[in-house]
Amino acid sequence: MGEAYEKVLEIASRRGFFWPSFEIYGGIGGFYTYGNLGTRLKRNIEELWREIFVRRHGFYEIEDPIINPSRVFEASGHLTHFREYVLECARCGRIVRADHLIEEQLGIPAQSIDGREVERLVGEGKVRCPNCDAELKAPVTFLTMFQTKIGAKGEEVGYARPEAAQGMFLNFRRCIRQARGALPLGLAQVGKVLRNEIAPRRGLFRLREFTIMEVELFFDPQNPSCPWFDRVKEEEVAILTEEMQERGERKPVRITLGEASSKGLIKAEWQAYFMGVSKEFITMLGIPEERQRFRGHLPEERAHYSVQTFDHEIHLENWGWIEVAGHAYRTDYDLSAHQRHSGVDMTLLRSDGSRFIPHVVEPSFGLDRLVHVALETSFRTMEGRNILAFPRSIAPINISVLPLVAKDGLPEKAREVQRILMDAGLVVEYDERGSIGRRYARSDEAGTPLALTVDYQTLEDGTVTLRDRDSWRQVRQRIDALPPLICRYLKGEIGFSELGIPAGDV
Amino acid sequence: MGEAYEKVLEIASRRGFFWPSFEIYGGIGGFYTYGNLGTRLKRNIEELWREIFVRRHGFYEIEDPIINPSRVFEASGHLTHFREYVLECARCGRIVRADHLIEEQLGIPAQSIDGREVERLVGEGKVRCPNCDAELKAPVTFLTMFQTKIGAKGEEVGYARPEAAQGMFLNFRRCIRQARGALPLGLAQVGKVLRNEIAPRRGLFRLREFTIMEVELFFDPQNPSCPWFDRVKEEEVAILTEEMQERGERKPVRITLGEASSKGLIKAEWQAYFMGVSKEFITMLGIPEERQRFRGHLPEERAHYSVQTFDHEIHLENWGWIEVAGHAYRTDYDLSAHQRHSGVDMTLLRSDGSRFIPHVVEPSFGLDRLVHVALETSFRTMEGRNILAFPRSIAPINISVLPLVAKDGLPEKAREVQRILMDAGLVVEYDERGSIGRRYARSDEAGTPLALTVDYQTLEDGTVTLRDRDSWRQVRQRIDALPPLICRYLKGEIGFSELGIPAGDV
Repeated sequence: MGEAYEKVLEIASRRGFFWPSFEIYGGIGGFYTYGNLGTRLKRNIEELWREIFVRRHGFYEIEDPIINPSRVFEASGHLTHFREYVLECARCGRIVRADHLIEEQLGIPAQSIDGREVERLVGEGKVRCPNCDAELKAPVTFLTMFQTKIGAKGEEVGYARPEAAQGMFLNFRRCIRQARGALPLGLAQVGKVLRNEIAPRRGLFRLREFTIMEVELFFDPQNPSCPWFDRVKEEEVAILTEEMQERGERKPVRITLGEASSKGLIKAEWQAYFMGVSKEFITMLGIPEERQRFRGHLPEERAHYSVQTFDHEIHLENWGWIEVAGHAYRTDYDLSAHQRHSGVDMTLLRSDGSRFIPHVVEPSFGLDRLVHVALETSFRTMEGRNILAFPRSIAPINISVLPLVAKDGLPEKAREVQRILMDAGLVVEYDERGSIGRRYARSDEAGTPLALTVDYQTLEDGTVTLRDRDSWRQVRQRIDALPPLICRYLKGEIGFSELGIPAGDV
Repeated sequence: MGEAYEKVLEIASRRGFFWPSFEIYGGIGGFYTYGNLGTRLKRNIEELWREIFVRRHGFYEIEDPIINPSRVFEASGHLTHFREYVLECARCGRIVRADHLIEEQLGIPAQSIDGREVERLVGEGKVRCPNCDAELKAPVTFLTMFQTKIGAKGEEVGYARPEAAQGMFLNFRRCIRQARGALPLGLAQVGKVLRNEIAPRRGLFRLREFTIMEVELFFDPQNPSCPWFDRVKEEEVAILTEEMQERGERKPVRITLGEASSKGLIKAEWQAYFMGVSKEFITMLGIPEERQRFRGHLPEERAHYSVQTFDHEIHLENWGWIEVAGHAYRTDYDLSAHQRHSGVDMTLLRSDGSRFIPHVVEPSFGLDRLVHVALETSFRTMEGRNILAFPRSIAPINISVLPLVAKDGLPEKAREVQRILMDAGLVVEYDERGSIGRRYARSDEAGTPLALTVDYQTLEDGTVTLRDRDSWRQVRQRIDALPPLICRYLKGEIGFSELGIPAGDV
């Protein structure tokens, strides 16, 4: 494991970003708890997504239940397809995912391996228990959804949803009426989803309970153009298509989204549009362009509902390329399936009188992964100290307020300043314990962009110092001028040097 | 059912606030879906709560999983106490909650009736099937938590949490370290909780899946005073204590929180403090003071962890007094229980060397109920039209933008105005369909505080009209002056007449 990764996990649990849940009872894999800093960071990323993906487009956001009756997942195909092959050791009872074990022990890609092939490899003893090297029992399939029963008699079998998307399909008819029939219609949802992973691992990267942020964009397949496509079509992205991978190519091409769309590399214009928005969003989280790419799913890794999927991947030191978003072209798969299973008409009427089922493009983000990525990407050290150099818009705490020493009326004055800043709507952390140097270090490690110090001069002339997390430079400013200046600084409207006049180190 | 209630439910489902989930599959009781307007309204209420209860106090917000292993609920007492007696009809198989049936058929309060008493009433045939009047089988207890299994072997039994509070107790040790040991410590959480209700009913009032907003405030029982109590102690509230109810009194007393605390009517000062904050919050949602009261739980209705609970109740036309928040004094019940079950030390050290387990006061809000209450309270009619007169801070849409007619360049100009307002961060709804009168009506019914009209004069002099949802008055203002004015209006900093110069009706 890379050093940055280890450091980041240590900071995360010590400072209150996230840590494994149920610690006092020994923990259970795949569940994480967010602390004070992590909850804020996560919510700030969510709000940025909402601004960029929902509010700007005037899309509708909805909230549908986590628990759904089994009929929903019969129709959606999840009860059939949301399964993994598992292998149990005949001696020690260890359970493993067949695809993981085959990849590990035989080095062959096995993400979509079929049951007969698994059976053969097990039968011939090609794969063995990773724990005790004994033989494995015949493979069985395992449904990776959490099941429960609803009602006092348990009369209704329910499942926790493994994606938020079904909520948008189930409520499509009502929402399109509320939007008075107009396509394109974007339905968005942020919420918890659950997957009973056999092998949860890698901290926030494969959780059993996690938060998803999804848009389902409904459009008429005879009118597939995106009215906002002009905004992104000159944008260049790195793409590794399905075809390129099948030809054995491993290096993505750089191409504009306009070209990728017109050449048919990306099948739906809406998909190309959202890939552009996706790049903008991920870049705003602090991930440089050269560490981003879009990789097309191979047919065998594609979900059952998709005709084309691009993963938005970013490059991390430890794990190489890792998915943070999926851009799927779901066509009319889901609405058609629900129409068939429910008997409810999902068609819309064109002005020429013909009827059609809308097509769907879906950008889907795993919020927890983004939290990890934002943390790891922002991590740096300076003179041996940890700094989380978050973009100012997503930093959990806006500003630290520190009395130079905890005496002579400085704490009282600092509390007064804290109150002024809090009344201006800022998230403020007050800290008076330990030397000022240690407190600056604590503030930097929490990723707080500014540290404000109240010193003896403050009592004389009402000025304080502001210190930049990233450069450690300091400026001096009057207290009464602070609130609007700091708000503008956090929005990125002004730079650090515009916050005051240069000050010496304290 | 009252007329307002029926109207509100009709508006809610037609306009996109909320409606029963899984409609296309016939629905399942106790699950609701929020639409575009409802999701925004809900989030605005949540943000107001966060501002008032969390940010202002500098409390820590955390996020813990929904699914917890059974050990958590063994320790917390939920596996023992979170049960209801159910009765099954020997003939038709109907399942009913014993307490509800006994209250309905015998008119005696039965919320905390014991098993033997239920058995006697059933055995003597005093209660019968409400469906077919047949005899009922002997009562059985039913655990009202959703159960599931975690892992490929189902090796770990898990439950969906019925409250968010346990997350704060499970993570208390880590959070207090992150706060560097300082009490009082407030831990807050907003999240989904689930209860497998036998009889879900009343729309958003008894759901199986709902959102809770909780603070657990940890303090040293030897230092029980709240540093902010001065802010609320002169505040007068209506209280109906446990003792008053036991004496048969039904009318609450009006008393200041300071007096209620010093007289011991409220056992913990922190509890009294949060009751004051609670009143402020609920009043900001538009519920007048005279429709609020605090009612003490009788011993038999109190949860197993509480020594004193006050429900914050509000009065609704249909249902009388209904709970929107619970203020419980949980003492050291939960931390002690987890210390006992996990073996992990939950004590803190005082400066005199003695050790103690912190006490806990909990204000807990059901967010979905607040959505309903905000909707029903804001509902009024004017000249036969529906208006949702939400407080401006929680209205789902900030402003409607309407071209007077959909021709002559007015739609284009209106789209331009829409873009300017969206760029200023506002939530804007554009509407060009139907007469201007119908569009005003639609805007009022969605609870949108302002409607902006682009007319022929706009093309000449760059001014538009703004119309007040509540008074239907209109003013005229220049487009370029709008963004800051509207932002200040929405914050309540200026009144409607300050938005421009009076204009005639369009």
